[in-house]
Amino acid sequence: MTNISTFEINEPLDMHLHLRDGDMLGLVGPLTSETFSGALVMPNLIPPITTKEDLLSYKQRINTVCKEDKFEPYLTLFFKNDYSYEFLEDIKKDIIGIKLYPAGITTNSETGVSSMDVEVLRPTLESMSKLGIPLCIHGETNGFVMDREKEFMPIYESLAKAFPNLKIIMEHITTKEAIELLDKYENLYATVTLHHLLITLDDVAGGMLNPHLFCKPIAKRPEDRTALLNTALGAHPKLMFGSDSAPHPKHKKESCGCAAGVFTSPIALQVLTQLFEKHGCLDNLNKFVSLNAQKIYGLKPVKKTITLVKKDFIVPSAYEYNYESVIPMYAGERISWSIKSID
Amino acid sequence: MTNISTFEINEPLDMHLHLRDGDMLGLVGPLTSETFSGALVMPNLIPPITTKEDLLSYKQRINTVCKEDKFEPYLTLFFKNDYSYEFLEDIKKDIIGIKLYPAGITTNSETGVSSMDVEVLRPTLESMSKLGIPLCIHGETNGFVMDREKEFMPIYESLAKAFPNLKIIMEHITTKEAIELLDKYENLYATVTLHHLLITLDDVAGGMLNPHLFCKPIAKRPEDRTALLNTALGAHPKLMFGSDSAPHPKHKKESCGCAAGVFTSPIALQVLTQLFEKHGCLDNLNKFVSLNAQKIYGLKPVKKTITLVKKDFIVPSAYEYNYESVIPMYAGERISWSIKSID
Repeated sequence: MTNISTFEINEPLDMHLHLRDGDMLGLVGPLTSETFSGALVMPNLIPPITTKEDLLSYKQRINTVCKEDKFEPYLTLFFKNDYSYEFLEDIKKDIIGIKLYPAGITTNSETGVSSMDVEVLRPTLESMSKLGIPLCIHGETNGFVMDREKEFMPIYESLAKAFPNLKIIMEHITTKEAIELLDKYENLYATVTLHHLLITLDDVAGGMLNPHLFCKPIAKRPEDRTALLNTALGAHPKLMFGSDSAPHPKHKKESCGCAAGVFTSPIALQVLTQLFEKHGCLDNLNKFVSLNAQKIYGLKPVKKTITLVKKDFIVPSAYEYNYESVIPMYAGERISWSIKSID
Repeated sequence: MTNISTFEINEPLDMHLHLRDGDMLGLVGPLTSETFSGALVMPNLIPPITTKEDLLSYKQRINTVCKEDKFEPYLTLFFKNDYSYEFLEDIKKDIIGIKLYPAGITTNSETGVSSMDVEVLRPTLESMSKLGIPLCIHGETNGFVMDREKEFMPIYESLAKAFPNLKIIMEHITTKEAIELLDKYENLYATVTLHHLLITLDDVAGGMLNPHLFCKPIAKRPEDRTALLNTALGAHPKLMFGSDSAPHPKHKKESCGCAAGVFTSPIALQVLTQLFEKHGCLDNLNKFVSLNAQKIYGLKPVKKTITLVKKDFIVPSAYEYNYESVIPMYAGERISWSIKSID
């Protein structure tokens, strides 16, 4: 094998991202928009985005901090049972999909749906299906923490069967069961995070407790990670990269009652390159991090070429803003690939 | 059912306890010695207790802070492969057992054994078997955090078979597999903590991360807790109460890299009474918390009667010492039983 020293990623897309708002948006927005062509932005603000007015105003705030001509935020609406067909028809051009949260399942999801019954969800889902609006789902039950995603599989199945024309994206999957479902229903897709390709519960709670790797869904078992990693490395056409990069201020991560989320935006492309190179799968990385999403969502992303070079990148120990800081994954550690240029 | 308003516990014994040393011993020693007749004290100090001199001097330090005539510390030695028969014969009267740690498996266990192979352990174990010194084991492999205890079961089995006359205590068991093993080998016994009767991984990492419930072995699945609880409530004669109460200063629990351990000494009897009453098993509590251990270890504990009354007990939010504090389980919460008198 030849020694690869540079690698190009074209039009990288992060298909699951938390940009937050206010000062935090000001900090993390540019960290994504500099290196990615676009990102699917989560709607779980406080309050969540459920109106056109809130959506367009959030898009404007994002465009103010991200470079508008170099980066496209793909916005999502927070799922509600009672969106009218007319409302969805009108807002369709402004969104890439609608994100469904079971109530209380993760950060700022208190106003999510309280029932995953197909009939309860049917009004909105039927409109979405007719209008061709994809459905993004945080697929967890409120069961035992290690079983929550696995227990959600029958719900994915019932939705996939009930709405065969609806594109359903299983967000941030963490289990081998979700991987198995990808090939079972034509209309089921998935995103997977960087951290779930790398860690298991051992990294969160196997040695000392590591709050910076505590996230929802929680990292699972080694065999789950293996299934996720192999599917990503193989560039399965229905699996997309979605960082679920979720910044929280340091004091909320390191205190008692640590908030859930791993912050990976500024290291994602370097670590993915390191990971895919290590497994001899660099040829598949552009599919995983861009082409699959382009096909699934029908996107034409902003042209952008990221050239990575095999040269050490020391991850910053923190990103500072307004007397606060956000700690990235691998803070202070060494990654073997760094970004050389962005064109 | 009649409404029970008081309950007596006689000669309570905590068969797995960390008393630490120095200022921390000064704080937590009395919190156990006030309400318990005796406790089996762990030897994993820094450095661990491996000599008679260290053992007797530690015992003296314990007796200085605990009331000697009202409380008996049952000391243990830190297991080593190369203890001579003569050494063990000499130290036998000063110890209740020897505690074996696989190297690096928990707090201060770095100098534990690096192999659990029966032949490697045989020299010391044969002497212990001949001398009738019980073996207490922290039974975890270095595998995936949720599997570590289950994976250790074959090791317990091989030891139980190889040394049929050696009393082996599976310390702080957390799984249904360990419960099943209790009835399979005559010479296998176990301790179980208060917190493992109450919590699962959900309480540690299912909502927000709760460092104060992070411990080793980590709390397991609901079906494991059910098996532990039913066996304790039924006062299985081979199962003893051992709190594994493990105080750490607050800053070590609430910072990044949280230390493992739950501090339960000052609430154990009240919460056990509440738990056994709730399940209609108060008649079995004295067996679980004293009589079983008396039989297994052949103890004649200091006479002590703890009278509990069904009256709210608000758990202190912290126990303070030297500008530091230790946070107990259920800090600031309400327990429905409190201690009325100690005679």
